[in-house]
Amino acid sequence: MNTDGSAVSLPPDDVLIAKTAAAANAVALVEPGMLVGLGTGSTAALAIEALARRVVAGLNVRCVATSLASDALARQHGLDVIAFDDVARVDLAIDGADEVDPELRAIKGAGGAFLREKIVARAAARMICVVDSTKQVAALGQRPVPVEVLPFAHSFVSRAVAQLSGSAVLREGVSDQGNMILDCQWERISDPALLDRQLSNVPGLLGHGLFLSEIDELHVGGSSGVEVFRRA
Amino acid sequence: MNTDGSAVSLPPDDVLIAKTAAAANAVALVEPGMLVGLGTGSTAALAIEALARRVVAGLNVRCVATSLASDALARQHGLDVIAFDDVARVDLAIDGADEVDPELRAIKGAGGAFLREKIVARAAARMICVVDSTKQVAALGQRPVPVEVLPFAHSFVSRAVAQLSGSAVLREGVSDQGNMILDCQWERISDPALLDRQLSNVPGLLGHGLFLSEIDELHVGGSSGVEVFRRA
Repeated sequence: MNTDGSAVSLPPDDVLIAKTAAAANAVALVEPGMLVGLGTGSTAALAIEALARRVVAGLNVRCVATSLASDALARQHGLDVIAFDDVARVDLAIDGADEVDPELRAIKGAGGAFLREKIVARAAARMICVVDSTKQVAALGQRPVPVEVLPFAHSFVSRAVAQLSGSAVLREGVSDQGNMILDCQWERISDPALLDRQLSNVPGLLGHGLFLSEIDELHVGGSSGVEVFRRA
Repeated sequence: MNTDGSAVSLPPDDVLIAKTAAAANAVALVEPGMLVGLGTGSTAALAIEALARRVVAGLNVRCVATSLASDALARQHGLDVIAFDDVARVDLAIDGADEVDPELRAIKGAGGAFLREKIVARAAARMICVVDSTKQVAALGQRPVPVEVLPFAHSFVSRAVAQLSGSAVLREGVSDQGNMILDCQWERISDPALLDRQLSNVPGLLGHGLFLSEIDELHVGGSSGVEVFRRA
């Protein structure tokens, strides 16, 4: 990030190179026989493609997917995808993020799959987040925090978010579960852990995009290669 | 409850009389023009019938329902039921419970509607719980705590409940939202507030049947009439 804590910007070609490098760096850690959790989004898709290349080269792994889109992409690339429903733990999850702070806390969910992503991340013995350097921020909250909402409760939850000083905008479309998504913006998220608890306490709010404890390792692609950060 | 803290038992006819009295006592508090939240279960059904009698006698109210079953029952009795989706608050909610402790904390959800019940209870300016005296307990946990689970996450959530020293049994059928329900039993719930936070922190666990803060008033029907308790 920049010295003022804001995100750096990179030319589009450099962003793609940085994402690809971060994804490949994480995929290099997949070991034979592992059950791998596949994330959702543009960088996670690059990881799926990198994993597929390792499988073509002889690696034997099975996968679970965090979205219908990633499930389809993985199968299209020949990966062995099993249903997560009967799975209680995975060995390694690889997924992207919308923004990550220096404590490896993230906002995820621009792609709308954050509920399943969080389940798989928690189920993972090791969770690696792969991003390009434009996603690093000094403090969370530059992007909205998405929340998944039971349609029955969408007015009630919007009011609850307003009572927490956030503003909620209904996103078009529905989640893979058929629920609504509200993008919630705060002027400043001064205490992410408090906001996590407050959001988790709202009935009908089925999940949110704050990932405060899930990421074990962060692989950041940038103009000078991939930097790796581990949770303290 | 009995002096040892266990629930009293009553003959079936007396239970019905007690439930009917508690329900009627709560329904007497409905005022003209109110938006009323209708609960789910056998005692809530008696409240719906009592409210319908008041409407026939000239009371003008609108209602929202916490389940497809209560929605159907209310309409069948001629009540004006509107969709909750566009509603952020109701005036008065009336609902039953499976067990209630002296601090007006409850376990709800034998009927499977606890997720919508909790949303409507929180949305209510005043929430009245109606029970017969067999539902009073010294400490929560004699009955299982139901949790609603995204089908994608049912194995993961069962493991999470086990890690919290509970045992989870998958209930037959699905919720009104099409999710699974696990009935979770603990040997002893020593700290209901802690368990609430722990359950709310499990991704894919979409809601649970611990109602610790929602009940404002408890109306208990027993062999000597209806006793009313208010939250301190």
